[in-house]
Amino acid sequence: MKKDDTPTSGSTQRVTSHDVSREAGVSQSAVSRAFTPGAHISPETRRRVLDAARKLGYQPNAIARSLVTQRSGIVALIVGDLHNPFYPQALSQFAQALEARGKRALLLTHDARRDVQDTLDAASRYQIEAAIVFPTRLNNTPPNLGDVARGGVPVLLFNRHLPGQRLLSVACDNHAGGQLAAEVLLETGARRLAFIGGDPETSTHQDRLHGFMARLQQAGLAPVAAPSGAFQYDWGVQATLDLYAEGDGPDAIFGANDIVAIGVLDALRQLGRRVPQDVSVIGFDDIQESARLAYRLTTIRQPLGAMIEDALLALEDPQPSDEPRLHQGELIWRDTVRGAR
Amino acid sequence: MKKDDTPTSGSTQRVTSHDVSREAGVSQSAVSRAFTPGAHISPETRRRVLDAARKLGYQPNAIARSLVTQRSGIVALIVGDLHNPFYPQALSQFAQALEARGKRALLLTHDARRDVQDTLDAASRYQIEAAIVFPTRLNNTPPNLGDVARGGVPVLLFNRHLPGQRLLSVACDNHAGGQLAAEVLLETGARRLAFIGGDPETSTHQDRLHGFMARLQQAGLAPVAAPSGAFQYDWGVQATLDLYAEGDGPDAIFGANDIVAIGVLDALRQLGRRVPQDVSVIGFDDIQESARLAYRLTTIRQPLGAMIEDALLALEDPQPSDEPRLHQGELIWRDTVRGAR
Repeated sequence: MKKDDTPTSGSTQRVTSHDVSREAGVSQSAVSRAFTPGAHISPETRRRVLDAARKLGYQPNAIARSLVTQRSGIVALIVGDLHNPFYPQALSQFAQALEARGKRALLLTHDARRDVQDTLDAASRYQIEAAIVFPTRLNNTPPNLGDVARGGVPVLLFNRHLPGQRLLSVACDNHAGGQLAAEVLLETGARRLAFIGGDPETSTHQDRLHGFMARLQQAGLAPVAAPSGAFQYDWGVQATLDLYAEGDGPDAIFGANDIVAIGVLDALRQLGRRVPQDVSVIGFDDIQESARLAYRLTTIRQPLGAMIEDALLALEDPQPSDEPRLHQGELIWRDTVRGAR
Repeated sequence: MKKDDTPTSGSTQRVTSHDVSREAGVSQSAVSRAFTPGAHISPETRRRVLDAARKLGYQPNAIARSLVTQRSGIVALIVGDLHNPFYPQALSQFAQALEARGKRALLLTHDARRDVQDTLDAASRYQIEAAIVFPTRLNNTPPNLGDVARGGVPVLLFNRHLPGQRLLSVACDNHAGGQLAAEVLLETGARRLAFIGGDPETSTHQDRLHGFMARLQQAGLAPVAAPSGAFQYDWGVQATLDLYAEGDGPDAIFGANDIVAIGVLDALRQLGRRVPQDVSVIGFDDIQESARLAYRLTTIRQPLGAMIEDALLALEDPQPSDEPRLHQGELIWRDTVRGAR
């Protein structure tokens, strides 16, 4: 390995960009461009640089560069519950969208029993450019990493909002989605409608519930039941078994998300109730599982790709607002609602 | 905001640990310990430091510190296919296990059409301490970030290995798992056994297949079919429909992983074949879905927690070997194999 010809703090011999430019027979500026996402360089030159770099064991130091440019290229993704498959899907797509922009995702898990601000503080020690917070329970103070207008790091809430707080937030229009779910069930003849909720302390639960109730009220109806619990399969199963423990039970159920609705479907199968002949079921999210032959769940799809693109756009020029940037859900007709058109 | 009293390269006024120590009324060393995972400090002192830090907007700079200590605390997790729910589960548990050690996960997605070495090279620009590579297709050269003995960054393959190559690898004993699957099916009376494989270019597919074949051979049998395709639900459905398109078809099926086996179960339901009365089915992984009432899949559980702990242990003192560090799978009896004991 070549002797380093620039001063370094460590004792290891470090290969420099000068060594690489000599080996590849290109300028040092070309070496730099080869390692800068989006920089102008021919594929052939880039290939020569990368081959030379690999041969010599050269790696440009993004960390050291970040101290100079103040742009680390790192965006923190703070995730909570990965049991709901919607979030791994979102996480994976966020990582890919960041990579397409030459950035990287620093993953932090968040324990719902703690204050999300602690996790954000931990993330901020890695000179992140931005932080994206996935849903957790609501609390009264918005998480922050300083005033964006004064050079603080922007924090964006994904699919979650805090009413009355000025912040960055991108969400599915959960209220309109709840209305749509009620609309679909009413139009296909349901009259005894139930909502099986998720975690009642979340804005997703609350907005979907309120939208659902508002549309029922227009029709002069109230839900026959609206229990809340958790965004989990087991809860969907148990709540459904309880609903049918006595009396006729509902003729249509809106599950607060797909995982809950899948629990509803499995419980109905166990009870011998036919879907959709006896009971219609509709969910929210459109996770992969919902398309499986065992379920074929009719649901309201969150436009995940558009929401992610919008989140990254919002972070480029952060304009906090007291309203989230809303995206409309899309009705996906499958086999669990009577009389699909 | 206080005027900075130490030199910085940027123009922003930066709050220092000195400001925080004064505000909190503690020593600067206590401030430092409050931000060092695992350092000795009373909860009360830590709380005072964090309150003062938050009030002043102070953040210790882990990135700058990493240049001095040469320990960034960042471990790269390189993931491929997140469609298989086993990997989001593994990813989430890895992130938590790293955080418990005061480290952070840098997430990089890998496109299977590219060389994993390119993704590793990109990761290495963030002064990572180690990289963990999740399964992708095999190729002939092991990914590396330099010779570990000469100060290179260790790379560990998770649940994947390259026969004959000296490297760090932690895996489930997929060969023994394949034998166990055959054993269970044979002992419960199956005679026409099929294997529905995953991606044939992966070590997980190959090892499970070879173990399965070896045990059948001991019993003087050969599989009635062993098609391979992808570790995906749709493939499991299609392969099963094809198997029963003519003739009797198998009386037992080993799905190369749970997602494939769940496709098998949905296809059998569609074909009107009863499980387990007409056909036994066994999977591999024990993902959450396998426990759902619609499936209740008998499967071989990968000991994920133990594998993750072992991976992090292996990275502390990297000893490359030509054999992976193997962990035994555990048989989880549910309802899809005849005559469960």
